[in-house]
Amino acid sequence: MSSATPLPSYSSYEFMLVSSPSPFVAHVEINRPKKLNAFTQDVWVEFSRVFRQISVDPEVRVVVLSGAGNRAFTAGLDVQAASEGLITAQASDPARKAKLLREHIEEFQESISAMEKCEKPVICVLHDIAIGLAIDIACCADIRICASNVRLSVKEVDIGMAADIGTLARLPKIVGSTSWVKDVCLSARDFSAEEALAVGFASQVHPDKARAVEAAVGMATALAEKSPIAVQGTKELLNYGREHGTADSLRYTAIWNAVAVQGADFSAALQSGLKRTRPRFEKL
Amino acid sequence: MSSATPLPSYSSYEFMLVSSPSPFVAHVEINRPKKLNAFTQDVWVEFSRVFRQISVDPEVRVVVLSGAGNRAFTAGLDVQAASEGLITAQASDPARKAKLLREHIEEFQESISAMEKCEKPVICVLHDIAIGLAIDIACCADIRICASNVRLSVKEVDIGMAADIGTLARLPKIVGSTSWVKDVCLSARDFSAEEALAVGFASQVHPDKARAVEAAVGMATALAEKSPIAVQGTKELLNYGREHGTADSLRYTAIWNAVAVQGADFSAALQSGLKRTRPRFEKL
Amino acid sequence: MSSATPLPSYSSYEFMLVSSPSPFVAHVEINRPKKLNAFTQDVWVEFSRVFRQISVDPEVRVVVLSGAGNRAFTAGLDVQAASEGLITAQASDPARKAKLLREHIEEFQESISAMEKCEKPVICVLHDIAIGLAIDIACCADIRICASNVRLSVKEVDIGMAADIGTLARLPKIVGSTSWVKDVCLSARDFSAEEALAVGFASQVHPDKARAVEAAVGMATALAEKSPIAVQGTKELLNYGREHGTADSLRYTAIWNAVAVQGADFSAALQSGLKRTRPRFEKL
Amino acid sequence: MSSATPLPSYSSYEFMLVSSPSPFVAHVEINRPKKLNAFTQDVWVEFSRVFRQISVDPEVRVVVLSGAGNRAFTAGLDVQAASEGLITAQASDPARKAKLLREHIEEFQESISAMEKCEKPVICVLHDIAIGLAIDIACCADIRICASNVRLSVKEVDIGMAADIGTLARLPKIVGSTSWVKDVCLSARDFSAEEALAVGFASQVHPDKARAVEAAVGMATALAEKSPIAVQGTKELLNYGREHGTADSLRYTAIWNAVAVQGADFSAALQSGLKRTRPRFEKL
Amino acid sequence: MSSATPLPSYSSYEFMLVSSPSPFVAHVEINRPKKLNAFTQDVWVEFSRVFRQISVDPEVRVVVLSGAGNRAFTAGLDVQAASEGLITAQASDPARKAKLLREHIEEFQESISAMEKCEKPVICVLHDIAIGLAIDIACCADIRICASNVRLSVKEVDIGMAADIGTLARLPKIVGSTSWVKDVCLSARDFSAEEALAVGFASQVHPDKARAVEAAVGMATALAEKSPIAVQGTKELLNYGREHGTADSLRYTAIWNAVAVQGADFSAALQSGLKRTRPRFEKL
Amino acid sequence: MSSATPLPSYSSYEFMLVSSPSPFVAHVEINRPKKLNAFTQDVWVEFSRVFRQISVDPEVRVVVLSGAGNRAFTAGLDVQAASEGLITAQASDPARKAKLLREHIEEFQESISAMEKCEKPVICVLHDIAIGLAIDIACCADIRICASNVRLSVKEVDIGMAADIGTLARLPKIVGSTSWVKDVCLSARDFSAEEALAVGFASQVHPDKARAVEAAVGMATALAEKSPIAVQGTKELLNYGREHGTADSLRYTAIWNAVAVQGADFSAALQSGLKRTRPRFEKL
Repeated sequence: MSSATPLPSYSSYEFMLVSSPSPFVAHVEINRPKKLNAFTQDVWVEFSRVFRQISVDPEVRVVVLSGAGNRAFTAGLDVQAASEGLITAQASDPARKAKLLREHIEEFQESISAMEKCEKPVICVLHDIAIGLAIDIACCADIRICASNVRLSVKEVDIGMAADIGTLARLPKIVGSTSWVKDVCLSARDFSAEEALAVGFASQVHPDKARAVEAAVGMATALAEKSPIAVQGTKELLNYGREHGTADSLRYTAIWNAVAVQGADFSAALQSGLKRTRPRFEKL
Repeated sequence: MSSATPLPSYSSYEFMLVSSPSPFVAHVEINRPKKLNAFTQDVWVEFSRVFRQISVDPEVRVVVLSGAGNRAFTAGLDVQAASEGLITAQASDPARKAKLLREHIEEFQESISAMEKCEKPVICVLHDIAIGLAIDIACCADIRICASNVRLSVKEVDIGMAADIGTLARLPKIVGSTSWVKDVCLSARDFSAEEALAVGFASQVHPDKARAVEAAVGMATALAEKSPIAVQGTKELLNYGREHGTADSLRYTAIWNAVAVQGADFSAALQSGLKRTRPRFEKL
Repeated sequence: MSSATPLPSYSSYEFMLVSSPSPFVAHVEINRPKKLNAFTQDVWVEFSRVFRQISVDPEVRVVVLSGAGNRAFTAGLDVQAASEGLITAQASDPARKAKLLREHIEEFQESISAMEKCEKPVICVLHDIAIGLAIDIACCADIRICASNVRLSVKEVDIGMAADIGTLARLPKIVGSTSWVKDVCLSARDFSAEEALAVGFASQVHPDKARAVEAAVGMATALAEKSPIAVQGTKELLNYGREHGTADSLRYTAIWNAVAVQGADFSAALQSGLKRTRPRFEKL
Repeated sequence: MSSATPLPSYSSYEFMLVSSPSPFVAHVEINRPKKLNAFTQDVWVEFSRVFRQISVDPEVRVVVLSGAGNRAFTAGLDVQAASEGLITAQASDPARKAKLLREHIEEFQESISAMEKCEKPVICVLHDIAIGLAIDIACCADIRICASNVRLSVKEVDIGMAADIGTLARLPKIVGSTSWVKDVCLSARDFSAEEALAVGFASQVHPDKARAVEAAVGMATALAEKSPIAVQGTKELLNYGREHGTADSLRYTAIWNAVAVQGADFSAALQSGLKRTRPRFEKL
Repeated sequence: MSSATPLPSYSSYEFMLVSSPSPFVAHVEINRPKKLNAFTQDVWVEFSRVFRQISVDPEVRVVVLSGAGNRAFTAGLDVQAASEGLITAQASDPARKAKLLREHIEEFQESISAMEKCEKPVICVLHDIAIGLAIDIACCADIRICASNVRLSVKEVDIGMAADIGTLARLPKIVGSTSWVKDVCLSARDFSAEEALAVGFASQVHPDKARAVEAAVGMATALAEKSPIAVQGTKELLNYGREHGTADSLRYTAIWNAVAVQGADFSAALQSGLKRTRPRFEKL
Repeated sequence: MSSATPLPSYSSYEFMLVSSPSPFVAHVEINRPKKLNAFTQDVWVEFSRVFRQISVDPEVRVVVLSGAGNRAFTAGLDVQAASEGLITAQASDPARKAKLLREHIEEFQESISAMEKCEKPVICVLHDIAIGLAIDIACCADIRICASNVRLSVKEVDIGMAADIGTLARLPKIVGSTSWVKDVCLSARDFSAEEALAVGFASQVHPDKARAVEAAVGMATALAEKSPIAVQGTKELLNYGREHGTADSLRYTAIWNAVAVQGADFSAALQSGLKRTRPRFEKL
């Protein structure tokens, strides 16, 4: 994907490489390859910023996320940096230390959640090493595609802690088999792309990273040609439906669509269907 | 199924054909085959009425739903009729138009939800064309069975809108893989009976519509021979369990069963089990 | 497993056999084999007590549950004993009888829920006959492993009642395909280990009970070597995540981990990782 | 109020008298004065119909509700008629009877809830006898005004049952003092207009029915002159806020207003404010 | 009240004095007057036991709760005993200590919540010193009555902690003014009986303890003469209504009453109303 | 209050004046007196920033909020500036315009919510003009104190819109009388300090702004001398209790306090109580 056009408005990031492989599609690469794309605080702050920017950028309609290079999607938290940071968090008693830690965890959670809140669909390509924080991140994506070489693991138990950046909150809601979810979260064992596909964590497996990214970009390109009002509304309403009861979701859907169908896209798409032309949609 | 006995008390419907292939089983067919069983407002009003009638009809214990003919379960909303209707909805500003649209969407939602609220189990046979509204309807059924020729699609994004009659509210709750749910809802792509089976949207696939309906009627016949108190209670409690937390669901279950087991069915079934006879159950 | 060390502090139970096949692992066997391990009130009271004891026992970190013998995990409620008990529940009108029944059901529910509330992971081995109450129990476990000979069934509809000890409250939350859940709960039909694996109800299938227990003990042994703070926190947070929305779950997670990571395990595990030694964890 | 203009489109009701004391205001009177305005099924079916009609009638923006005559707002359920109806509800066992009763209660609840769901504000004038069902009805209103002679009571406990048409569901949400709520609901004692005012159940007390209605009509007239988009939105959002958490309510509010402020009323009201003229608002 | 008949089945308690001032009424007195009725673990374990016993005792229909003697309702937690207990809770790190503390708090919470879960109405008489835990307890009662000499305070902030036995969870739900709730909880200031009455925390104020108890017993006696099915159902449904949304509460109410009105009380009360006799109700 | 010490770390704000009238107390004044302290986007961005800064500033434990000068707390939104801003928000259709408006409303909501999320208690002094946005802001405070001259109004209906910055979401949760809440929100009428006190919206009324601020500072000073762990925990748990059911709140409380009581404050306060000395608490 290195031949894709870099997006100038995203050139200031140090750890996020953003290019545009096709119109209205942004490809975000976590870009700290020498450290296996591991996350320090600087990285997750940028991660948050890039998805907030994309969320309101009318030039981007769909996002593909991968790691840079061929060694890791991300090896997760940069444990060495993190433990140094935490050690410096001095506090005079466990309650005061708990407040500092809570603030730290919540800030970290919010940074990663920025991808879930991004109003554009995110297709996440998991390849090479994708452990720990990699799963927290992947759970915030809309669609997951794997390279067959990926090594996946909810690794946190092996460093003596429960995962706290979102995996345990979201995985029970996005994979149907709780027996499997508990197995991989409690054991911290590796699982493969094929297993991820079989349980429904991922939607597709491709032979290598390049072809997985190619598939993701292809899917993104197709979505980017559709009405952005329809696509972004669908993402919002599915996320709402996952979190709320049916009666609440139906009501919210009615409120949402009562103005969404007043957009030009609905009639444009209807007309194109009748005339068998390809509709063009305004920016959103 | 044309040889099944028509049910006289349902003979007044214009777009719903209701017959009884076996005792206590109703087969409802969406009956507008020349228009691919597409839904106008008249159709969905009848759809609602038929399921409200069945819900309180002690002669019906289980329902099978299919389309009439061999071209479509339903091609969804009759877009031409719908767009004409919406065009006539005049309003002086976007807020006033939103109110009209909201009322319209909510009335439509309630009509389709009538099938979910029907207290008898509904087995939905998906065959031939089953797109758009077909999926909203299928999500309200209890069990889904496919003919292998079915063409399934959450089609709404392709007409420039998010699906608003229930698919986005219910699909995340009835299929385990959110990655798959988002894929099909965002892309509006076709998916096959086999794919529906693999992800758990459907429970069975049969070679053609006739055999799918036969399987559904067989399943319905078996359910209809069981205690209606047990069967209808199970449907109610599973729906409640999907929508509420475990503690609330256990409490509701206890309240429900504290009177349900006072019915004659419980002791009748127990006695039949001991005596190895077949129990007969009163109407409900 | 009869060669496993009996655990002396659990020797007073009549219907629960508790041994320790490996350090920090308890194997609980439902032990009423002549009656197919069927449950009377005496059995479920003991079932509750054993899991409450384990929950606060620092010598136990992981539990394996199976039936004793090779005829049944459990054949469920001892219907004969139960019906005798209910018949003696005299009341002067249906409302008063409902109160007695409600109290009875809630007490029964609470006894089985004690396993879900046990703070240590529970791996449930389903083998031979595992019907009715067996499924209510299995739904309270964290991970389910099947012997290939198991006969599974949500049997209650066949005795004229809706399952009321938890299956209908929990199954929609732990298996992704609602179409399958409704099929097995409404029809009361048998389903196999392979089917349980395919839909995600179970995580593994082994050729017979012995090898299924062996696999469960192996998994339990591996979990028992990990940080108990990490493992028990992961169980708690996954259960919370299943029951609450994402925002609430993230908040709860942050509060939880703000003190959990102040435990010695986190730094011990980090150090062990760097030094490539095996960490040892204090009791919890 | 007998001199108010009858509203022709509401002339077909037998038990509901609907007049218009001022532009866009409807005064609904429960009209069965010889029976103290007690409710039979025929009455509550009409009650439901009249509020559904008003909800979508652009000629009505605010509603005042009172009883007809000077003997009662309503004496509640017509117990004699009700007990006759229930006695004819034959069923072969308590479970089957429970289903009939449940359907009956739910239908009754829905009829009264129609007033809460009516999108126009309802000001309820409580006067003379207002017991039992009167409180269920009053809890569905937006604002309650009392005549000082009113006799109020949550009477159901005195006929051997818990109130089931909404008082117990709504009163804890609309009056702050739970200690008072439980007192009046458990004891079935009478309470006065002054007491209703002191605890916040009512907003105003007037010396007699005539002046209470006059005050209600005055308030209604003032509301009817305001933007209907603003008034109806405010009712909807307050009801939503009562039922949902703050985060959900803020989100819903944002979705709602994102189209509501595109109405002509917002700029009309702003302009009128600057020019100190009185705005006129389109129908809604 | 010392002249009231002691209830023999409650004679084994050490810290709870239970007498019966009138038929079907139990008066529970917290009975550790030399220590201002302060709570040690032994006391709260008995508190829990007595309310569990009352909940299923058909001889008791209503409860009055007060302190024994004229010095205190309760001065709250016995801080000295508590601090000694906590000091002995040894743990090797803050996370392990947190687990012990959490178990301790939850056990304490459950003991006090037993009064809220008691299915019979509880009228709490607050007199003399009533601080700290006294408020947690009072929040679990249904109705609160004060002696004018009572000294009330949410005292916990003054011992360096947030109240954790229920005040902060329940007070915002049972008193309407959040501004007042936060004032008294944050400041730990004393507030008077009159203030408690004005904000709706209490329902009545009487000149001294004797007369407050007399009023409570009078109210209890009146409730005890009513249908226990109606009274207990009303308590349950009001508690449910406080915790759930309106739609859920209406549904639960319908399920509950569909069997409750099959009790003999409903027709007995109706008949008594017509014949103007006093109904008698069976035990419950 | 002009003689209070300005807080240097807050000197960069243009529209927020922050001084410290006593140790650990910050007095925030909305400072745009020539425009009646009306809010433009610049003002609310600063409002959000100042409360985020205070939330993590260990030098501040309690906040008093008022308007600067003697003309207004705030006259609300600067309507002229706002309407100019909205007019420039160009969009090609109502759906696209709705997205811009939604983003605008949500950003505005988040800015005001920052005060509710601030972990330190906020005492809001309402004086002079306090209409529209003033009420949205006051609803985010913990305690409200009025000057008797204040003119309060939920003004939004009079500019043709429903209040959307929080009043409609929060007022039903912080004032007990829904009848009153709907009255003032639907009618947009003025209400007085005395009325605010009577319904529980405010906790105190003082003769003028100076004395109201004095009372607020006095209360703040008293809170600032207490354990910050106890005070901030109490605020958090009360807010949680308002938004969640009792069972969830009790659980959250137990988790929270399991580490909070490990702080030094608990034993310091206990010791001080025994020794009758005044405790000193570490920063938080």
